[in-house]
Amino acid sequence: MPVISKKKIKIGRLKPVPGFTACGMSCGIKKNGKKDLALIVSDAPAAVAGVFTTNKVKAAPVMLSIARVKKGWTRGVVINSGNANACTGRRGDKDAMAMTAAVEKALGLKTGEMLAASTGVIGVPLPVKKIEAASDALASRLRNNGLAEVSEAILTTDAFPKTAFLSVNIHGVKISIAGIAKGAGMICPDMATLLAFFMTDAAIKPAALRRALKEAVDVSFNGISVDNDMSTNDTALAFASGASNPKEIKAGTPDFRRFTSLLTEVAQRLARMIVMDGEGATRFITLEVCGAASRKDAASAAKTVASSMLVKTAFFGGDPNWGRILAALGRAGIKMKEDRVDVFFNGVQVVKRGLDTGKEKKAARAVNPAEVLVRIGLNMGDFSTVHWTSDLSYEYVKINSAYRT
Amino acid sequence: MPVISKKKIKIGRLKPVPGFTACGMSCGIKKNGKKDLALIVSDAPAAVAGVFTTNKVKAAPVMLSIARVKKGWTRGVVINSGNANACTGRRGDKDAMAMTAAVEKALGLKTGEMLAASTGVIGVPLPVKKIEAASDALASRLRNNGLAEVSEAILTTDAFPKTAFLSVNIHGVKISIAGIAKGAGMICPDMATLLAFFMTDAAIKPAALRRALKEAVDVSFNGISVDNDMSTNDTALAFASGASNPKEIKAGTPDFRRFTSLLTEVAQRLARMIVMDGEGATRFITLEVCGAASRKDAASAAKTVASSMLVKTAFFGGDPNWGRILAALGRAGIKMKEDRVDVFFNGVQVVKRGLDTGKEKKAARAVNPAEVLVRIGLNMGDFSTVHWTSDLSYEYVKINSAYRT
Repeated sequence: MPVISKKKIKIGRLKPVPGFTACGMSCGIKKNGKKDLALIVSDAPAAVAGVFTTNKVKAAPVMLSIARVKKGWTRGVVINSGNANACTGRRGDKDAMAMTAAVEKALGLKTGEMLAASTGVIGVPLPVKKIEAASDALASRLRNNGLAEVSEAILTTDAFPKTAFLSVNIHGVKISIAGIAKGAGMICPDMATLLAFFMTDAAIKPAALRRALKEAVDVSFNGISVDNDMSTNDTALAFASGASNPKEIKAGTPDFRRFTSLLTEVAQRLARMIVMDGEGATRFITLEVCGAASRKDAASAAKTVASSMLVKTAFFGGDPNWGRILAALGRAGIKMKEDRVDVFFNGVQVVKRGLDTGKEKKAARAVNPAEVLVRIGLNMGDFSTVHWTSDLSYEYVKINSAYRT
Repeated sequence: MPVISKKKIKIGRLKPVPGFTACGMSCGIKKNGKKDLALIVSDAPAAVAGVFTTNKVKAAPVMLSIARVKKGWTRGVVINSGNANACTGRRGDKDAMAMTAAVEKALGLKTGEMLAASTGVIGVPLPVKKIEAASDALASRLRNNGLAEVSEAILTTDAFPKTAFLSVNIHGVKISIAGIAKGAGMICPDMATLLAFFMTDAAIKPAALRRALKEAVDVSFNGISVDNDMSTNDTALAFASGASNPKEIKAGTPDFRRFTSLLTEVAQRLARMIVMDGEGATRFITLEVCGAASRKDAASAAKTVASSMLVKTAFFGGDPNWGRILAALGRAGIKMKEDRVDVFFNGVQVVKRGLDTGKEKKAARAVNPAEVLVRIGLNMGDFSTVHWTSDLSYEYVKINSAYRT
């Protein structure tokens, strides 16, 4: 993953993507009356690709979408928040099916043409009747500029909606990608549900789109977590309508590289926003590990340091506690020698070859800003990685101890 | 590990163990004037066994003690709190050596006869001159009933000292084991330093003592953590003076089993106290996993659930959030089927074959007490385990974000 830019996060202003309509509304699942139901629809069958949770406990809508994405083409996705429809057994499967059936009927589509995604409380049956009752109203709300409503309707504990929109010219034809994501619990391995949706008007077949999506997710969402830590509902879907750019983007071509770069940039912007919105997060931490003996070592070092509660609480306290970083590295299962480790906080070297550089005060100032770049040099080899995380605050505990009550 | 008894924890009243003297005092390492230096001495060479951190970053006193324990016999240990003497390079090695040398001199012992242990802040040079200056006063304080002072002098963020004392008759001769421990951060994988010292008047050779200690640690301290999560300073030492029971306890005999059971019981009492003193802990959680397909699966399931921040915060909030437990199981890398999982909170079944039993109110009452027994039935095989943990509170974040400042 490339080092992120130091620009402040700007919520990307969504523009319409040719070939898609969308909308969001409240159907009564959330008790506070906030939006909890969203729809993204392609005017014609769109190429689709998906990346799903690897958790063995998969929510019903995830199982449904995994099966339907295999066809490679779809008409869109219906999403609800406030209830995850996970750990709900056969009833959950029926409810996920009913959720898509209601929307398919309202849109005049055939069974199986729509996908589903859910996020919210686990283990409580989905109040699917509310979705069924709202489906005609939902369908009639669809419009070109409805994606912003989707970004609101999919939120749970998120503090703000996450969107990104970028365009690029390929052979003189502009193609765009709109990205919408949801998630705010990723500061720990038990990340809250991640949902991400990408809409593009590029013409790209399902297999190539799948490759591009996998590459983009690997260096964005997977850089703030890892596969096997995913929640029961994590879902990333990419839809390509082909509406604006009839020239097909084929895998392995320069056009494909440009498209994948654009998709990656959109995904990384969303990933940064998710970390920024980490439950209760007060600091954004970029963790650069370099000089690892292998790619696996680099990832393991970054992940172990990033998920250390002692490291995270020290950052919350503005404490340049490099000892906790060394202790985390020591149990990361990597090749390391204590007397080779260097650590920098925002450019201030606090550890040189395993020893304190005595720059305590300077280091304390360096970890004070809202963004901290932690650079760890292992000096064992040539592999490096970048990981994004946040600090651990009182607020995190508060949010997660009170989530359902 | 056997299921823990529901008895409230009582701080074990320490009695003298024949053959040992001990004491604790303040030498000025801790700025608040609290005790920070302790000594345990055997009148004659005692058999010794040790279990040490597997962290690749090992503190200087750990390196020193690992080397000296290999001889099998020692005269005791000097312990300081307030400074871990970890990540301190060659200077740290010299300081650990100087720390034992000062005490050896004051006691009229030869170089290498004493062990060392340290706990406290990482990366700051040990103020060894303070220990050297105090060593004569420390040696003159030694007395039969000094172990309680040791239990105070080794504390860092601990809320209370942890001691246990048990005796058993072996062939009509009473042998005793006194246990002293320190540690309060074990509610997460980055546990704070664990120090544990066991003194017995039994006659047992180093090899047999090593076997007994390993067995006791495996089903006590390792049941609240795992080897590779250990801190830079973790140390468990067992000393056997043989002062009261000249009949040697040989490995593999019924006497050895009785001795090991006694040592295990002392270690488990200390382990329970450490969890109870988990930084900011408000609830004590016993996690029983049964029906796992393998021993590894049982341990992995218990560890993943026990270290889930979402599970821990839910317990803090008194929220019977079994969905988070299922989500943790799903990413534990074990053989499982969602529709076979049973979950009980203090006897109330909240999940039956993967589904909500609808006993929300009863379950909410069940997770309310200060002690919660969580029983997870995987129904995949015959392996089971017990793990002890605590909840995650505001207080944990507070303690760990302010530790050094």
